[in-house]
Amino acid sequence: MTVIQSRQNAALRHLARLGREKKYRRSTGEMLCEGEKMLREALASGTRVKTLLAREGWQDALLDHAAEQGAVLYCAADALFGLASDVETPQNVVFSCRQPQWEARDLQGKRQVLLLDGLQDPGNLGTILRTAEAFALGAVVLCEGCADPFSPKVVRSTMGAVFRLPCVQLPLADAVEQLREAGLAVYATALHADSMPLDTVPLERAAVIIGSEGRGVSQSALNLSDKRVIIPMAGRAESLNAGVAAAIVIYEMTK
Amino acid sequence: MTVIQSRQNAALRHLARLGREKKYRRSTGEMLCEGEKMLREALASGTRVKTLLAREGWQDALLDHAAEQGAVLYCAADALFGLASDVETPQNVVFSCRQPQWEARDLQGKRQVLLLDGLQDPGNLGTILRTAEAFALGAVVLCEGCADPFSPKVVRSTMGAVFRLPCVQLPLADAVEQLREAGLAVYATALHADSMPLDTVPLERAAVIIGSEGRGVSQSALNLSDKRVIIPMAGRAESLNAGVAAAIVIYEMTK
Repeated sequence: MTVIQSRQNAALRHLARLGREKKYRRSTGEMLCEGEKMLREALASGTRVKTLLAREGWQDALLDHAAEQGAVLYCAADALFGLASDVETPQNVVFSCRQPQWEARDLQGKRQVLLLDGLQDPGNLGTILRTAEAFALGAVVLCEGCADPFSPKVVRSTMGAVFRLPCVQLPLADAVEQLREAGLAVYATALHADSMPLDTVPLERAAVIIGSEGRGVSQSALNLSDKRVIIPMAGRAESLNAGVAAAIVIYEMTK
Repeated sequence: MTVIQSRQNAALRHLARLGREKKYRRSTGEMLCEGEKMLREALASGTRVKTLLAREGWQDALLDHAAEQGAVLYCAADALFGLASDVETPQNVVFSCRQPQWEARDLQGKRQVLLLDGLQDPGNLGTILRTAEAFALGAVVLCEGCADPFSPKVVRSTMGAVFRLPCVQLPLADAVEQLREAGLAVYATALHADSMPLDTVPLERAAVIIGSEGRGVSQSALNLSDKRVIIPMAGRAESLNAGVAAAIVIYEMTK
């Protein structure tokens, strides 16, 4: 294990840039993860861990495990260690790993899919991926205008689901075309007068479009969908948090 | 409208302390809110707006409305204005108002209640209050170990529900005793082998206890409940985000 002693160290700067820069994440194909739980999940999922930085003095069998799988190990004292982290109170380990690679063909054979239309909030996006995995949804598609699924906050909020749940980045029109050809019904969630209550439409083979919290689903999403559905609500709030709306849709689809 | 020109100004310091200090919020009985939407919601709900600070140059009919209802108005240039705000990019208005006062007697006649047991995360708590209002749940009870419902982050996440939804702070044992006497069944959500699936128990007159995300419900909550219930999930995630779990419980209760 190499001890990092300068803030100019290339591995340290690599980790810090992965946390901050979306373009750098894209060009390297890596993402930044933090904490023992995420390291355990990454290793268990077979995700390739590349650069690992441990807090000086921290020892754990996970480090040997990571090294065996080819990770390059570093350690640093608190002040330098913190520079690599994306959070205020870092845990004991920060690492980079390969971004999971999902493609349109990973949607093949999926019977229940969520399509996210312009979902910008990283916390909500991560929570949706976590919820989708908890309920064994087939896949999530990130369409135009969504947050980067490999940003540190999204990754953190998934609690490890990012390593396992098929999460495909695809334009909405392409995703709808492919899923419709595979026989799935396509619904858009919308607060319209003609929307059908979610629990009255068949959801066994379905793709449901969720919009952004502020704007709802886009006009093009409404045009592309077979039907508009609404989450039945008796109360007075205009809308739900996007993560909550998605969770209820996922629950209703998979129950 | 008084122009604030010093960071020592008493009104400015009052707002900043309301944002930062729970004890100060408790001793003054006020809370800090931000943004036009929240101001509109506060005024519409009849909540007493006390000290209002507008960004210099911002004009809006809401200001007259607030003044008519007795608010004391200030304005300040950007640098000073930002000192009163709890967020990185403040909106145009920051204000204090009376904390809504809810007591045990506000639970009387409620048929469906959520009891939160040690729910620490402010964002989750705010989202739960917002969801509860959207589905017209009767009330939410904050039991031991919950976050302060009047902290800026909770208030913000409620999107205004904090002004309207009955949100009672009460020890769990007292709340359960009162609700059980009123004829409600008491359930604890728990990942136990003997837990009943949530959609198989009667929920028309029920109180459901939600635990913290890390620890789940406490042993005393399990002891106090009639039955343990579980959200049926086919997937592999150990647990759901607490806001998501609460949302699905609320949805299932009120559907």
